[in-house]
Amino acid sequence: MESEKKYMSYALAEAVAAAGRGEVPVGAVLVDTTTGDIIAASGNDVISASDPTGHAEMRVLRQAARQLGAPRLVDCDLYVTLEPCPMCAGALSLARVRRIYFGAYDPKGGGVEHGPRVFSHPTCHHRPEVYGGIDEDACGQILRDFFQARRGMETDA
Amino acid sequence: MESEKKYMSYALAEAVAAAGRGEVPVGAVLVDTTTGDIIAASGNDVISASDPTGHAEMRVLRQAARQLGAPRLVDCDLYVTLEPCPMCAGALSLARVRRIYFGAYDPKGGGVEHGPRVFSHPTCHHRPEVYGGIDEDACGQILRDFFQARRGMETDA
Repeated sequence: MESEKKYMSYALAEAVAAAGRGEVPVGAVLVDTTTGDIIAASGNDVISASDPTGHAEMRVLRQAARQLGAPRLVDCDLYVTLEPCPMCAGALSLARVRRIYFGAYDPKGGGVEHGPRVFSHPTCHHRPEVYGGIDEDACGQILRDFFQARRGMETDA
Repeated sequence: MESEKKYMSYALAEAVAAAGRGEVPVGAVLVDTTTGDIIAASGNDVISASDPTGHAEMRVLRQAARQLGAPRLVDCDLYVTLEPCPMCAGALSLARVRRIYFGAYDPKGGGVEHGPRVFSHPTCHHRPEVYGGIDEDACGQILRDFFQARRGMETDA
């Protein structure tokens, strides 16, 4: 439990940095379970990179796979501050990630515990183990603060 | 109908090129509907790029968004030789693509007409229009040939 919170704190730091860039504050780290090392870390980078696929989860998967020189990340666990969306859930399955630890649940856009529940279908060829609600309050608060500030700006404008 | 087959023929050419690289032969093109121009074209590039997210659809979305300098591709239609998987379906929704024309149906791995049916949930914020079965025989045959050849190699080994 302590190590889960430790890794999630790094994911949270990436979410904070993303908010500073005007991105939806979601952060992720990918951990090599054989060494315990963080091998990739990123926040969302959709706007500044002009990349509709630039969610934190996708960015760490791509970083790590490029570094390791292989498209499958079998000995890796993902820590992400928000429940993955359907795109990211699909990518995590394709990449053969072992476990997903996420922070806040996302009833509006999640694809793991909500909506299409990507891992729940017989056609899903690899189902990562999923642990939700890790440091949920902090992970959710940064998102609430971000959207509240954005609504404030819209009201001011 | 003629223009749909024309665009799909370019997607098929990308699939053929992907097979030549040892990739699962799926190809895609993205069309700017205001001009009719193909603004991005790619086949799968998972293995050679060491990218678990390197499906043809993802690659054309990224290419086009980078070129246009925006993460949303509202005036674009996608042509792809195979029904998109859950990851790609999620990305096409996030990118606000207008229409998806696909070739072969994919009961084993599709995420649009099969499995999680990503666009069918109330939490899906943007539902592209979907047209399946465009030049279905040719799009499916290249996949069948590829997997048959691969099984042959496995038997020889």
